[in-house]
Amino acid sequence: MEQRVSLITLGVAHVTRARTFYEGLGWRGQEVAGTVFFQAGGLALVLWGRDELARDGGIDDGHEGGSGGSGGSGGSGGFGGVALAQNVRSPEEVDAVVAAAERAGATVTRPPATTFYGGYAGYFTDPDGHVWEIAHNPGFTLAEDGSLILPDFGTS
Amino acid sequence: MEQRVSLITLGVAHVTRARTFYEGLGWRGQEVAGTVFFQAGGLALVLWGRDELARDGGIDDGHEGGSGGSGGSGGSGGFGGVALAQNVRSPEEVDAVVAAAERAGATVTRPPATTFYGGYAGYFTDPDGHVWEIAHNPGFTLAEDGSLILPDFGTS
Repeated sequence: MEQRVSLITLGVAHVTRARTFYEGLGWRGQEVAGTVFFQAGGLALVLWGRDELARDGGIDDGHEGGSGGSGGSGGSGGFGGVALAQNVRSPEEVDAVVAAAERAGATVTRPPATTFYGGYAGYFTDPDGHVWEIAHNPGFTLAEDGSLILPDFGTS
Repeated sequence: MEQRVSLITLGVAHVTRARTFYEGLGWRGQEVAGTVFFQAGGLALVLWGRDELARDGGIDDGHEGGSGGSGGSGGSGGFGGVALAQNVRSPEEVDAVVAAAERAGATVTRPPATTFYGGYAGYFTDPDGHVWEIAHNPGFTLAEDGSLILPDFGTS
Protein backbone atom coordinates (compact mmCIF):
# COMPACT_ATOMS: atom_id res chain seq x y z
CA MET A 1 0.00 0.00 0.00
CA GLU A 2 1.40 3.37 -0.95
CA GLN A 3 1.85 5.91 1.80
CA ARG A 4 -0.68 8.58 0.86
CA VAL A 5 -4.26 9.78 1.38
CA SER A 6 -6.50 10.77 -1.54
CA LEU A 7 -9.67 11.92 0.19
CA ILE A 8 -10.84 12.78 3.68
CA THR A 9 -14.60 12.40 3.94
CA LEU A 10 -16.34 14.08 6.85
CA GLY A 11 -19.72 12.57 7.62
CA VAL A 12 -22.15 15.36 8.40
CA ALA A 13 -25.71 15.68 9.58
CA HIS A 14 -26.61 18.40 7.07
CA VAL A 15 -24.49 18.84 3.97
CA THR A 16 -25.66 22.39 3.30
CA ARG A 17 -24.91 23.52 6.86
CA ALA A 18 -21.44 21.98 6.68
CA ARG A 19 -20.76 23.48 3.27
CA THR A 20 -21.82 26.91 4.48
CA PHE A 21 -19.39 26.60 7.38
CA TYR A 22 -16.41 25.68 5.19
CA GLU A 23 -17.32 28.39 2.71
CA GLY A 24 -17.38 30.78 5.65
CA LEU A 25 -13.74 29.81 6.15
CA GLY A 26 -13.06 30.79 2.58
CA TRP A 27 -13.06 27.31 1.06
CA ARG A 28 -14.55 26.78 -2.40
CA GLY A 29 -15.97 23.44 -3.48
CA GLN A 30 -18.21 21.69 -5.93
CA GLU A 31 -21.42 19.84 -5.09
CA VAL A 32 -22.35 16.66 -6.91
CA ALA A 33 -25.41 14.64 -5.94
CA GLY A 34 -25.47 15.98 -2.38
CA THR A 35 -21.74 15.55 -1.85
CA VAL A 36 -19.34 18.50 -1.64
CA PHE A 37 -15.74 18.17 -2.85
CA PHE A 38 -12.99 20.64 -1.92
CA GLN A 39 -9.59 20.38 -3.59
CA ALA A 40 -7.12 20.70 -0.69
CA GLY A 41 -3.58 20.42 -1.94
CA GLY A 42 -3.03 16.94 -3.31
CA LEU A 43 -6.17 15.52 -1.78
CA ALA A 44 -9.87 16.25 -1.55
CA LEU A 45 -11.84 17.09 1.56
CA VAL A 46 -15.37 15.76 1.10
CA LEU A 47 -18.63 16.47 2.95
CA TRP A 48 -21.17 13.68 2.77
CA GLY A 49 -24.17 12.61 4.83
CA ARG A 50 -22.89 10.65 7.79
CA ASP A 51 -25.52 7.93 7.43
CA GLU A 52 -24.77 7.50 3.73
CA LEU A 53 -21.06 7.31 4.43
CA ALA A 54 -21.56 4.65 7.09
CA ARG A 55 -23.88 2.68 4.82
CA ASP A 56 -21.48 2.93 1.89
CA GLY A 57 -18.67 1.57 4.02
CA GLY A 58 -20.63 -1.18 5.71
CA ILE A 59 -19.99 0.56 9.02
CA ASP A 60 -22.23 0.29 12.07
CA ASP A 61 -22.79 3.85 13.26
CA GLY A 62 -23.72 2.68 16.72
CA HIS A 63 -27.28 3.81 16.76
CA GLU A 64 -30.63 2.62 15.58
CA GLY A 65 -33.52 4.38 14.00
CA GLY A 66 -31.78 6.88 11.81
CA SER A 67 -29.60 9.91 12.24
CA GLY A 68 -28.73 11.69 15.40
CA GLY A 69 -29.28 8.81 17.77
CA SER A 70 -27.43 8.87 21.02
CA GLY A 71 -27.07 5.19 21.77
CA GLY A 72 -23.65 4.98 20.22
CA SER A 73 -20.37 3.59 21.30
CA GLY A 74 -18.38 6.78 21.99
CA GLY A 75 -14.86 6.45 23.18
CA SER A 76 -12.61 4.19 21.20
CA GLY A 77 -13.67 1.87 18.46
CA GLY A 78 -16.99 3.27 17.23
CA PHE A 79 -17.50 5.02 13.92
CA GLY A 80 -15.89 8.43 14.15
CA GLY A 81 -17.80 9.94 11.27
CA VAL A 82 -14.65 10.21 9.14
CA ALA A 83 -13.35 8.03 6.32
CA LEU A 84 -9.92 8.24 4.71
CA ALA A 85 -9.61 7.06 1.14
CA GLN A 86 -6.72 6.02 -0.97
CA ASN A 87 -7.43 5.99 -4.69
CA VAL A 88 -5.44 3.50 -6.72
CA ARG A 89 -4.88 2.91 -10.40
CA SER A 90 -6.90 -0.23 -11.11
CA PRO A 91 -9.61 -2.50 -9.68
CA GLU A 92 -6.93 -5.19 -9.25
CA GLU A 93 -4.97 -2.84 -7.01
CA VAL A 94 -8.10 -2.32 -4.87
CA ASP A 95 -8.32 -6.08 -4.38
CA ALA A 96 -4.62 -6.34 -3.57
CA VAL A 97 -4.58 -3.53 -1.00
CA VAL A 98 -7.73 -4.69 0.78
CA ALA A 99 -6.37 -8.25 0.92
CA ALA A 100 -3.06 -6.98 2.32
CA ALA A 101 -4.92 -4.92 4.92
CA GLU A 102 -6.91 -7.96 5.99
CA ARG A 103 -3.70 -9.95 6.38
CA ALA A 104 -2.31 -7.10 8.50
CA GLY A 105 -5.30 -7.35 10.83
CA ALA A 106 -7.86 -4.98 9.32
CA THR A 107 -11.58 -5.71 9.47
CA VAL A 108 -13.01 -5.64 5.95
CA THR A 109 -16.37 -3.93 6.30
CA ARG A 110 -17.19 -3.86 2.60
CA PRO A 111 -15.45 -6.30 0.30
CA PRO A 112 -14.34 -4.70 -2.97
CA ALA A 113 -17.22 -4.27 -5.40
CA THR A 114 -18.36 -1.92 -8.13
CA THR A 115 -19.65 1.42 -6.90
CA PHE A 116 -22.62 3.57 -7.79
CA TYR A 117 -20.35 6.06 -9.56
CA GLY A 118 -18.84 3.50 -11.91
CA GLY A 119 -15.74 2.73 -9.90
CA TYR A 120 -14.60 -0.16 -7.74
CA ALA A 121 -13.93 0.09 -4.01
CA GLY A 122 -13.66 -1.71 -0.71
CA TYR A 123 -13.58 -0.54 2.90
CA PHE A 124 -11.77 -1.70 5.99
CA THR A 125 -11.26 -0.46 9.54
CA ASP A 126 -7.94 -0.33 11.36
CA PRO A 127 -7.52 -1.76 14.89
CA ASP A 128 -9.05 1.42 16.39
CA GLY A 129 -12.03 1.50 14.08
CA HIS A 130 -10.69 4.22 11.77
CA VAL A 131 -12.26 3.78 8.35
CA TRP A 132 -10.34 3.44 5.09
CA GLU A 133 -11.72 3.15 1.60
CA ILE A 134 -9.53 1.83 -1.19
CA ALA A 135 -10.99 2.95 -4.50
CA HIS A 136 -10.46 2.97 -8.19
CA ASN A 137 -12.36 5.95 -9.56
CA PRO A 138 -11.76 6.51 -13.26
CA GLY A 139 -13.33 9.98 -12.96
CA PHE A 140 -10.63 11.35 -10.65
CA THR A 141 -7.09 11.95 -11.88
CA LEU A 142 -4.17 10.52 -9.96
CA ALA A 143 -1.00 12.43 -10.74
CA GLU A 144 2.28 10.59 -11.04
CA ASP A 145 3.21 11.60 -7.47
CA GLY A 146 -0.10 10.18 -6.18
CA SER A 147 -1.87 13.53 -5.78
CA LEU A 148 -5.59 13.42 -6.43
CA ILE A 149 -6.95 16.06 -8.79
CA LEU A 150 -10.70 16.62 -8.84
CA PRO A 151 -12.39 17.11 -12.18
CA ASP A 152 -14.36 20.21 -13.01
CA PHE A 153 -17.82 18.81 -12.36
CA GLY A 154 -19.41 21.81 -14.02
CA THR A 155 -21.22 22.58 -10.78
CA SER A 156 -20.61 25.03 -7.99
CA MET B 1 -7.98 29.99 5.70
CA GLU B 2 -6.05 28.22 2.99
CA GLN B 3 -7.65 25.15 1.48
CA ARG B 4 -5.31 22.39 2.62
CA VAL B 5 -4.65 19.79 5.33
CA SER B 6 -1.23 19.36 6.96
CA LEU B 7 -1.78 16.44 9.32
CA ILE B 8 -4.39 13.79 9.98
CA THR B 9 -4.09 12.52 13.54
CA LEU B 10 -5.75 9.23 14.38
CA GLY B 11 -6.42 8.80 18.07
CA VAL B 12 -5.61 5.23 19.04
CA ALA B 13 -5.91 3.08 22.13
CA HIS B 14 -2.42 1.59 21.78
CA VAL B 15 0.17 3.40 19.70
CA THR B 16 2.38 0.33 19.23
CA ARG B 17 -0.52 -1.82 18.06
CA ALA B 18 -1.58 0.86 15.59
CA ARG B 19 1.96 1.39 14.33
CA THR B 20 2.39 -2.35 13.81
CA PHE B 21 -0.79 -2.40 11.75
CA TYR B 22 0.31 0.46 9.47
CA GLU B 23 3.76 -1.03 9.12
CA GLY B 24 2.06 -4.28 8.15
CA LEU B 25 0.56 -2.29 5.27
CA GLY B 26 4.07 -1.28 4.24
CA TRP B 27 4.07 2.20 5.76
CA ARG B 28 7.24 3.51 7.35
CA GLY B 29 7.17 6.16 10.07
CA GLN B 30 9.11 7.79 12.86
CA GLU B 31 8.19 7.68 16.54
CA VAL B 32 8.76 10.70 18.76
CA ALA B 33 7.64 10.72 22.39
CA GLY B 34 4.97 8.10 21.85
CA THR B 35 3.65 9.67 18.66
CA VAL B 36 4.18 8.11 15.23
CA PHE B 37 4.50 10.30 12.12
CA PHE B 38 4.13 8.96 8.58
CA GLN B 39 4.92 11.22 5.63
CA ALA B 40 2.00 10.66 3.26
CA GLY B 41 2.38 12.80 0.17
CA GLY B 42 2.15 16.46 1.17
CA LEU B 43 0.79 15.73 4.63
CA ALA B 44 1.54 13.59 7.65
CA LEU B 45 -0.60 10.80 9.05
CA VAL B 46 -0.08 10.71 12.80
CA LEU B 47 -0.87 8.06 15.42
CA TRP B 48 -1.35 9.42 18.93
CA GLY B 49 -3.09 8.23 22.08
CA ARG B 50 -6.76 9.06 21.75
CA ASP B 51 -7.01 10.39 25.30
CA GLU B 52 -3.98 12.63 24.83
CA LEU B 53 -5.36 13.93 21.54
CA ALA B 54 -8.71 14.75 23.14
CA ARG B 55 -7.02 16.43 26.10
CA ASP B 56 -4.70 18.42 23.83
CA GLY B 57 -7.65 19.71 21.86
CA GLY B 58 -9.89 20.46 24.81
CA ILE B 59 -12.33 17.87 23.46
CA ASP B 60 -14.79 15.92 25.59
CA ASP B 61 -14.35 12.30 24.54
CA GLY B 62 -17.77 11.43 25.87
CA HIS B 63 -16.72 9.15 28.65
CA GLU B 64 -15.52 9.38 32.21
CA GLY B 65 -12.86 7.53 34.08
CA GLY B 66 -10.23 7.07 31.43
CA SER B 67 -9.89 5.24 28.17
CA GLY B 68 -12.24 2.78 26.62
CA GLY B 69 -15.39 3.93 28.34
CA SER B 70 -18.66 3.18 26.65
CA GLY B 71 -20.80 6.05 27.84
CA GLY B 72 -20.07 8.19 24.86
CA SER B 73 -22.15 10.12 22.47
CA GLY B 74 -21.83 8.00 19.31
CA GLY B 75 -23.71 9.05 16.26
CA SER B 76 -23.22 12.61 15.18
CA GLY B 77 -21.45 15.26 17.14
CA GLY B 78 -19.21 13.33 19.54
CA PHE B 79 -15.44 13.12 19.26
CA GLY B 80 -14.62 10.86 16.35
CA GLY B 81 -11.09 10.13 17.45
CA VAL B 82 -9.63 12.05 14.51
CA ALA B 83 -8.17 15.54 14.26
CA LEU B 84 -7.26 17.40 11.11
CA ALA B 85 -4.55 20.01 11.34
CA GLN B 86 -3.55 22.89 9.21
CA ASN B 87 -0.09 24.24 9.86
CA VAL B 88 0.42 27.90 9.13
CA ARG B 89 3.41 30.20 8.91
CA SER B 90 3.18 32.26 12.10
CA PRO B 91 1.50 32.45 15.50
CA GLU B 92 -0.41 35.49 14.23
CA GLU B 93 -1.87 33.37 11.45
CA VAL B 94 -3.05 30.82 14.04
CA ASP B 95 -4.92 33.59 15.84
CA ALA B 96 -6.41 34.89 12.62
CA VAL B 97 -7.64 31.51 11.35
CA VAL B 98 -9.13 30.47 14.70
CA ALA B 99 -10.89 33.83 14.99
CA ALA B 100 -12.26 33.48 11.45
CA ALA B 101 -13.48 29.97 12.24
CA GLU B 102 -15.28 31.22 15.33
CA ARG B 103 -16.96 33.92 13.28
CA ALA B 104 -18.03 31.22 10.79
CA GLY B 105 -19.69 29.26 13.60
CA ALA B 106 -16.95 26.98 14.91
CA THR B 107 -16.69 26.07 18.56
CA VAL B 108 -13.23 26.97 19.84
CA THR B 109 -12.27 24.12 22.15
CA ARG B 110 -8.77 25.33 22.88
CA PRO B 111 -7.93 28.97 22.37
CA PRO B 112 -4.56 29.52 20.69
CA ALA B 113 -1.67 29.08 23.12
CA THR B 114 1.90 27.88 23.15
CA THR B 115 2.33 24.12 22.86
CA PHE B 116 4.51 21.58 24.63
CA TYR B 117 6.67 21.23 21.50
CA GLY B 118 7.50 24.90 21.28
CA GLY B 119 4.84 25.88 18.79
CA TYR B 120 1.56 27.75 19.00
CA ALA B 121 -1.83 26.21 18.26
CA GLY B 122 -5.57 26.36 18.77
CA TYR B 123 -8.39 23.89 18.17
CA PHE B 124 -11.96 24.22 17.02
CA THR B 125 -14.77 21.89 16.00
CA ASP B 126 -16.95 22.28 12.95
CA PRO B 127 -20.77 22.10 13.18
CA ASP B 128 -20.62 18.27 13.18
CA GLY B 129 -17.95 18.05 15.85
CA HIS B 130 -15.06 17.34 13.47
CA VAL B 131 -11.86 18.56 15.10
CA TRP B 132 -9.39 20.99 13.53
CA GLU B 133 -6.10 22.18 14.94
CA ILE B 134 -4.50 25.31 13.53
CA ALA B 135 -0.81 25.23 14.38
CA HIS B 136 2.44 27.02 13.92
CA ASN B 137 5.19 24.43 14.36
CA PRO B 138 8.64 25.80 13.59
CA GLY B 139 10.00 22.23 13.52
CA PHE B 140 7.96 21.19 10.49
CA THR B 141 8.68 22.60 7.05
CA LEU B 142 5.86 24.10 5.02
CA ALA B 143 6.72 24.10 1.34
CA GLU B 144 5.70 26.99 -0.83
CA ASP B 145 2.71 25.01 -2.14
CA GLY B 146 1.58 24.32 1.45
CA SER B 147 2.84 20.74 1.61
CA LEU B 148 4.07 19.66 5.03
CA ILE B 149 7.46 17.98 5.13
CA LEU B 150 8.40 16.10 8.29
CA PRO B 151 11.93 16.47 9.59
CA ASP B 152 14.23 13.52 10.05
CA PHE B 153 13.73 13.04 13.77
CA GLY B 154 16.69 10.69 13.91
CA THR B 155 14.38 7.98 15.23
CA SER B 156 12.70 5.01 13.62
